[in-house]
Amino acid sequence: MRQDFQSILNTIYQELTSLDDKGTVASYIPELAKVDKHHFGIHLRTLDGHSYGVGDFDTRFSIQSISKVLALSQAASLVGNDIFKRVDVEPSGNPFNHLALLEIENGIPRNPLINSGAIVIADILISYLKNPKQDFLNYVRDLVGDDSIDFNLEVAHSEKITGFKNYAAANLLKSFNNLENSVDEVLYFYFHQCSIEMSCRQLTKAFYLFANKGSSLLHKAQLTESMIKRINAIMLTCGFYDEAGEFAFEVGLPGKSGVGGGIVALLPDKFVITTWSPGLNKKGNSQLGMMALEQFTSATKLSIF
Amino acid sequence: MRQDFQSILNTIYQELTSLDDKGTVASYIPELAKVDKHHFGIHLRTLDGHSYGVGDFDTRFSIQSISKVLALSQAASLVGNDIFKRVDVEPSGNPFNHLALLEIENGIPRNPLINSGAIVIADILISYLKNPKQDFLNYVRDLVGDDSIDFNLEVAHSEKITGFKNYAAANLLKSFNNLENSVDEVLYFYFHQCSIEMSCRQLTKAFYLFANKGSSLLHKAQLTESMIKRINAIMLTCGFYDEAGEFAFEVGLPGKSGVGGGIVALLPDKFVITTWSPGLNKKGNSQLGMMALEQFTSATKLSIF
Amino acid sequence: MRQDFQSILNTIYQELTSLDDKGTVASYIPELAKVDKHHFGIHLRTLDGHSYGVGDFDTRFSIQSISKVLALSQAASLVGNDIFKRVDVEPSGNPFNHLALLEIENGIPRNPLINSGAIVIADILISYLKNPKQDFLNYVRDLVGDDSIDFNLEVAHSEKITGFKNYAAANLLKSFNNLENSVDEVLYFYFHQCSIEMSCRQLTKAFYLFANKGSSLLHKAQLTESMIKRINAIMLTCGFYDEAGEFAFEVGLPGKSGVGGGIVALLPDKFVITTWSPGLNKKGNSQLGMMALEQFTSATKLSIF
Amino acid sequence: MRQDFQSILNTIYQELTSLDDKGTVASYIPELAKVDKHHFGIHLRTLDGHSYGVGDFDTRFSIQSISKVLALSQAASLVGNDIFKRVDVEPSGNPFNHLALLEIENGIPRNPLINSGAIVIADILISYLKNPKQDFLNYVRDLVGDDSIDFNLEVAHSEKITGFKNYAAANLLKSFNNLENSVDEVLYFYFHQCSIEMSCRQLTKAFYLFANKGSSLLHKAQLTESMIKRINAIMLTCGFYDEAGEFAFEVGLPGKSGVGGGIVALLPDKFVITTWSPGLNKKGNSQLGMMALEQFTSATKLSIF
Repeated sequence: MRQDFQSILNTIYQELTSLDDKGTVASYIPELAKVDKHHFGIHLRTLDGHSYGVGDFDTRFSIQSISKVLALSQAASLVGNDIFKRVDVEPSGNPFNHLALLEIENGIPRNPLINSGAIVIADILISYLKNPKQDFLNYVRDLVGDDSIDFNLEVAHSEKITGFKNYAAANLLKSFNNLENSVDEVLYFYFHQCSIEMSCRQLTKAFYLFANKGSSLLHKAQLTESMIKRINAIMLTCGFYDEAGEFAFEVGLPGKSGVGGGIVALLPDKFVITTWSPGLNKKGNSQLGMMALEQFTSATKLSIF
Repeated sequence: MRQDFQSILNTIYQELTSLDDKGTVASYIPELAKVDKHHFGIHLRTLDGHSYGVGDFDTRFSIQSISKVLALSQAASLVGNDIFKRVDVEPSGNPFNHLALLEIENGIPRNPLINSGAIVIADILISYLKNPKQDFLNYVRDLVGDDSIDFNLEVAHSEKITGFKNYAAANLLKSFNNLENSVDEVLYFYFHQCSIEMSCRQLTKAFYLFANKGSSLLHKAQLTESMIKRINAIMLTCGFYDEAGEFAFEVGLPGKSGVGGGIVALLPDKFVITTWSPGLNKKGNSQLGMMALEQFTSATKLSIF
Repeated sequence: MRQDFQSILNTIYQELTSLDDKGTVASYIPELAKVDKHHFGIHLRTLDGHSYGVGDFDTRFSIQSISKVLALSQAASLVGNDIFKRVDVEPSGNPFNHLALLEIENGIPRNPLINSGAIVIADILISYLKNPKQDFLNYVRDLVGDDSIDFNLEVAHSEKITGFKNYAAANLLKSFNNLENSVDEVLYFYFHQCSIEMSCRQLTKAFYLFANKGSSLLHKAQLTESMIKRINAIMLTCGFYDEAGEFAFEVGLPGKSGVGGGIVALLPDKFVITTWSPGLNKKGNSQLGMMALEQFTSATKLSIF
Repeated sequence: MRQDFQSILNTIYQELTSLDDKGTVASYIPELAKVDKHHFGIHLRTLDGHSYGVGDFDTRFSIQSISKVLALSQAASLVGNDIFKRVDVEPSGNPFNHLALLEIENGIPRNPLINSGAIVIADILISYLKNPKQDFLNYVRDLVGDDSIDFNLEVAHSEKITGFKNYAAANLLKSFNNLENSVDEVLYFYFHQCSIEMSCRQLTKAFYLFANKGSSLLHKAQLTESMIKRINAIMLTCGFYDEAGEFAFEVGLPGKSGVGGGIVALLPDKFVITTWSPGLNKKGNSQLGMMALEQFTSATKLSIF
């Protein structure tokens, strides 16, 4: 099967790199708009110890919203299921009224993977960690086993001065008493969290615990099996903005995308796969990444369904 | 493992039947309000050929919205992926504005398992079937291998004269040209579809194909593996009203509930399980059924995540 | 001043008939789409007993939603302020989610001049009148003093077979127990009510009581001064779909428009004015009519503000 | 008539001060919660030069949202109708989703009297005025002819540290490029504007120009008659939160309320009236003030309708 995986990745890579339409690089964070959209990389790690890659799988990129899963994971390890007193686990549905949903539902975000929910998770981490930014970075470095992983301060700063919708969401949360810390402190942490840069290979390692019942590559039992199952469920139902249903439908794996063009997906007990291509489709997910994962699960018939 | 399954079901049954709070029997369809809420049954069928039951698993009840999956399945066998030109596959999110979503999204229902989506599926079946009601009934009978399965005409009639919200939804669909047939014809079919009565044991058989790559108990290849995967994904993300995320989170199986108190859930390649208890929780899903399935997947550690 | 009014109307007429863009004739009711959009008429009646007209002010057209004010007026004369237990008096705001508003607000329409509110008023009339259609027609005939006024049965029928959004609204009202009579009965009445045909001159007479403290041209004290004030307030805040604020802002008179291209407006104690031009602007109000009324109140400096 | 007005005010005062239910003092701005809810004052000024008062009509209170009309007025004198490129003139309808409306409507607030609209007006003033806070204060002082009018810096500060919903709205506006200045600068101005303290008598003077075709007590032609008419129309359709329709219906005057418990209303060419009672009803308007104005217009039969 080892050879098969590599040849499947090669085929996907060749077919997709030849496409004219590679989507549109996110422009709302000025720093991200500078990335060349011709990058494309895929990395796969199976739980039986093999790994496979094609293209730019060792180039680092801004993981952005993918970081939300890692922050949720750290918060879950600190607080357990009490997280879910402050954030729900339902898909958010509407693209057009996230703030309204928050308003109607009294400041309880729909789930921890939409921005408002991730901002609540950031607030939880700040309350629990001594040195929040450094401690979160160390958590991620430890999952991967690589101390070179770091924030991109230009990207964090770029969001700080342009992220008005996040300020709107955080202030709304604050008005409902669902932030313990100050809006500025929470968003400052959150923008750093999102600015972390990693390669496909590193992300595959970072998400290894979600396919491996809670044990990371280096450490056993970071999270209980039950919590891992729950986080995987949240990724499946909420991990892809307004395309969560579409991703479950076409790909059938828990996963998470980011506007930097990365997508991580996984099949419990089997594998973790990461793709990166900076061009986004209309719903804000990596265009080639979505196609690559669809083709991969079609070719291998490996999905949770 | 055979004995284990039976003893797990027995334990769950004993614990839950002793609970005081059994939820509230649905009252909006007058005929359904007559059911005794002390009924409780579970039936499990594994793909290795065994089956297990406890309680009232041979008593028939109104399958209601569970029928939506069977109608979707028949429509998929007739029309294939063209279904998804007329209905989307995203979770619906808000409980409070289903009609508004339909209005904003130009008459394309969020998914085939909310009422408006199921009404579009009913319209598709009417357009494709010669004798829609009889042909759909035969499809279900054939899945189970039991010609005694039938509509409950009192229940169908009861909905016809009280189902004003469904008339509202169907007329809205019609105003957007997303119904080919007349509102009355479509709803008449739809109310019959929902009125079918089956036992837990029968439902477990009817859903066997979704765990078995598209082959039912009696026939091979009713649906392609790819379509089965898609329908399972829709069940997972959309099968439980506003508790879809919660069910994925707590139980972790594709499934579908009905206001008659039934729930069917399945693990691909492994098993199908059906519960029935008529009392509903606040979100409209069977209260004991939700708990039973959560306990079952916790005890067996069998879930898709 | 008599000559002034006539010359102001003449000037407006000449200027507006020379415009190329006359809006778009409503097409959603097939019968209405047949009307020639070059019609344009204005009729003015002052409370000191004079009247002025220009263009097609004696041609009859479908009054459509203008009838809602007359139905409200008759209902108010029968039921008084109890009407407002079943329908609110607030502007509706959003164009895009009228059904959702109704859903969220438990079946209480925002005001009696949006469709759902007018359907509730129709239900009230049916409950109180012996021969609802005929009695309502007689009420209107009596306001004008003209027994030749009648329904257009083709238009009523045309709406009956295409008015799916009204069926959706009525069924939603019924689901909230805010209709006493059957959906079909209420809408059948409502479509007749809207199909009445009148000329500008006749409409000016019909609305005379709203400028004249409740006394119509022929009869004293049809409604109390207090009720007249309330109905005028509703016209001002809710009479022009999503342009109610715009109309108050630009014109400054209570009034009501219809998709047939008519607009009636009035200044208490001073005058009633009716315009008709079948082409509608993007918000569904008569394009030339809106301009004519704006020019009229600018030229005369007669407005409530 | 002079005596009549005074005796009408006296009667209203006596009746309403004897009521047990005086509403609830606003608590969301901590400084405002300290006010004694037994205050009650009314002041009336007619355009024929008389004035009448009863109760605490010379006690100053926080004018809060009433300031929005004065800011709009100053902005209109500087910018004219260009204001309405950045803010609409439609009633806002829903209480529960103001932020969502803003989101759906691309950052164009529904009208200048809801918070988001008033924040845009504040932004306009900051861009046009040399010393915004002082220049606005001078504008208000000049309308009244009283240089003792001032901000309450404790109240302004109190809002600055608790006004999270306003920060949410301002950031959302900023994300749609509908703020030229920084969020902090705009809100700092806005909180000062709202913190101005005036008595009923002073407010009556400040609003004199809206009843007097644009000329204030001291100066001619501050605003054109056309602009005055427009601002009056906006007050009528949008001046009372979700009770705008109710106020038009029950009272029938253009006006504006504030959470400090003040209400100013006016009849063009006739009078300006101000009430103050700090207890608010469920919709956020002064409970006794609403009743007083309803009784006043009923007793005098003076309204725009």
